[in-house]
Amino acid sequence: MANNRVFQPSARSHVPPFEVMDILSRVAELRADGRSIVSLCAGEPSSGAPKGVSDEAARIHATGTPPLGYTSPLGTHELRAAIAGHYHNWYGIEVDPRQVAVTTGSSGAFTLAFLAAFNPGDRVALVSPGYPAYRNILTALGIEVVTIATGPATRYQPTPALLDNAIAEYGELHGLILASPANPTGTMVNRAELAALTEWCVSHTVRLVSDEIYHGITYPVHGAADPLGVSAWETDRSGLVISSFSKYWGMTGWRLGWALMPEDLADAMDALAGNFSLCPPAPAQFAALGAFDAERYVERDAVVAGFATARGLLLEQHERLGWGDAAPADGAFYYYADLGPQLERWGTSSAYARALLEEAGVALVPGTDFDPEHGHRTVRLSFAAGEDAVAEAIDRILRFQAG
Amino acid sequence: MANNRVFQPSARSHVPPFEVMDILSRVAELRADGRSIVSLCAGEPSSGAPKGVSDEAARIHATGTPPLGYTSPLGTHELRAAIAGHYHNWYGIEVDPRQVAVTTGSSGAFTLAFLAAFNPGDRVALVSPGYPAYRNILTALGIEVVTIATGPATRYQPTPALLDNAIAEYGELHGLILASPANPTGTMVNRAELAALTEWCVSHTVRLVSDEIYHGITYPVHGAADPLGVSAWETDRSGLVISSFSKYWGMTGWRLGWALMPEDLADAMDALAGNFSLCPPAPAQFAALGAFDAERYVERDAVVAGFATARGLLLEQHERLGWGDAAPADGAFYYYADLGPQLERWGTSSAYARALLEEAGVALVPGTDFDPEHGHRTVRLSFAAGEDAVAEAIDRILRFQAG
Repeated sequence: MANNRVFQPSARSHVPPFEVMDILSRVAELRADGRSIVSLCAGEPSSGAPKGVSDEAARIHATGTPPLGYTSPLGTHELRAAIAGHYHNWYGIEVDPRQVAVTTGSSGAFTLAFLAAFNPGDRVALVSPGYPAYRNILTALGIEVVTIATGPATRYQPTPALLDNAIAEYGELHGLILASPANPTGTMVNRAELAALTEWCVSHTVRLVSDEIYHGITYPVHGAADPLGVSAWETDRSGLVISSFSKYWGMTGWRLGWALMPEDLADAMDALAGNFSLCPPAPAQFAALGAFDAERYVERDAVVAGFATARGLLLEQHERLGWGDAAPADGAFYYYADLGPQLERWGTSSAYARALLEEAGVALVPGTDFDPEHGHRTVRLSFAAGEDAVAEAIDRILRFQAG
Repeated sequence: MANNRVFQPSARSHVPPFEVMDILSRVAELRADGRSIVSLCAGEPSSGAPKGVSDEAARIHATGTPPLGYTSPLGTHELRAAIAGHYHNWYGIEVDPRQVAVTTGSSGAFTLAFLAAFNPGDRVALVSPGYPAYRNILTALGIEVVTIATGPATRYQPTPALLDNAIAEYGELHGLILASPANPTGTMVNRAELAALTEWCVSHTVRLVSDEIYHGITYPVHGAADPLGVSAWETDRSGLVISSFSKYWGMTGWRLGWALMPEDLADAMDALAGNFSLCPPAPAQFAALGAFDAERYVERDAVVAGFATARGLLLEQHERLGWGDAAPADGAFYYYADLGPQLERWGTSSAYARALLEEAGVALVPGTDFDPEHGHRTVRLSFAAGEDAVAEAIDRILRFQAG
């Protein structure tokens, strides 16, 4: 009994490809040909993990102690407690370790959070420009994405007024993704703005998912309030906080992150984790316990000071670059700018990025990956590569544009 | 503008809890109280990872070489090629490394495979008794599960006739999950049976997902054909093969697995992986390259010989245990048996398991986790814990039943 179907990918797996993937492939080809390439694409610190954490991982593997079998689905008690301690240390709030879910990177946390919090057909709002994986994961899980266009007027962040508009236009919302510091813009919400957003979410029964993976990588002026970032759980705990060892601790490839789970979702996320992932990587869980030692914070803050220097170079050169407006890089390690006058010559940010890579050997990400509507005008530079890379890139960009 | 909704978990996150989780919690409590507990619950080899792989992981962490940043979403070229080489070595087939997806455990492979291959509302068949996470992941992704009840007559495996019946009863199918060796029964399909199933799948445009994570952990009689297991890709490549470093290589906590992707799904799975997981754990990817050295296979086959000894103890004691029929443990490290006459005294396998744990300090898994309909009669013993643990467990069980 045959049918007329053919084997083909599911409709939901039609994820738009990232332009940065093509650029990274080309970077690899050019480097294989011996070309010197400065890549400001990657959202990962070049520093790598803290030495104490790497050394502990080496010891664990060399001795086989502790054994590296499955842990509990939401991670070891010790690491969940250590993460709770981090919230006391940084934010002065008490978190029950049973409401901490250790996950396989923040990616794993987003998947579990979206599955537990939202049903197919639910509407979740997020801003554009923004991190494209939010949209792609939500869509693949059957959740409707409501895009809120933002710009400099709200520092690229959502506001209660923008959310009211979204409800008026699309109907009731079930979730909101907030990222502070944001990717690609680096902008942050302050305590009052975050409180207004959480209050709006609670009053509209909208589940807040607060992406705080760049906390601690911030560039406050001296004496500023809340220099590390404000956590959504300081205000209200009906939403989820998502964070990671990847950015502040530089442990991208280790795939270790976490979520703070509201009480009503904890059992659901535990059960989902037991089925979808069994457990987060055990070696990383055991080694990461050392990430919260006092000297680790000192060490990581020195890494952040290095990002600040690289960021300073870009801000200083803003006028000489002859681009348009850039988003305020309050935190993270991204400089997101409109190419302004340069667009007259190259037309789009994609064309600019490809020419810059071929002719000057500098790789950056066209804004189309973050903003399908306006991203043809913008580029994202990551200054996680450090001061020397940024200085060299600026020199090359200026020569490229003058050439 | 308030609404009448309350914060609550999504309907799709209502995953039935595993009874084994309660048992494992109780094991931890009893051990904390100083009780001696023999646990035959865990589906993981007590041997841990190959020493060569652990040593390489220690070296990588100690030296920071290679750097542990993000890799490509489907893993490093080197590991994808090494896995392809494994198919040449074990099965004598050539696999294009571009059709190998390295994943975060086989769990990550199942999620990517189900997302890429099936749309919400598609119907996917699987057998009962079976591994519960298949059902729970599929259900959470909106895919309809069609359960095929199996028993000793088909060695707990699906057959074309059973699949025809399923279509007659439920309507057209879109996928079939096949596990050989299976969890919890350990049974395998032979080459002819697998060929008949793949042929049936192709002719019905049913995507086969072949779980081969226990390949290599098999107990063939001397001179048997296909002693390691037959791969679905030996017959046809329109389906997916899923495997893992967790079982044969004993690397459960490392979270590293893979999928062989049919050509039409490779791009979709790459894009999904780039959004859902970014990449599999980098340290494990680099260290696992050594898993395919010739001496590693020799070492792992010695571990399997240990499982065979432990399995032999159970088979020898079958009559003395006074249970009912057990499934043929062709492979994996599970002994799945009907409790038979013991049910007269304890009523259900859950009651039996709980009493056995409290009174005799032996932990095993009630069959209800694998078969909601008939599992109240059955238990699963894992002999991955080794000969000594199994011998001690048998002694305790015999005393418990005599008491």
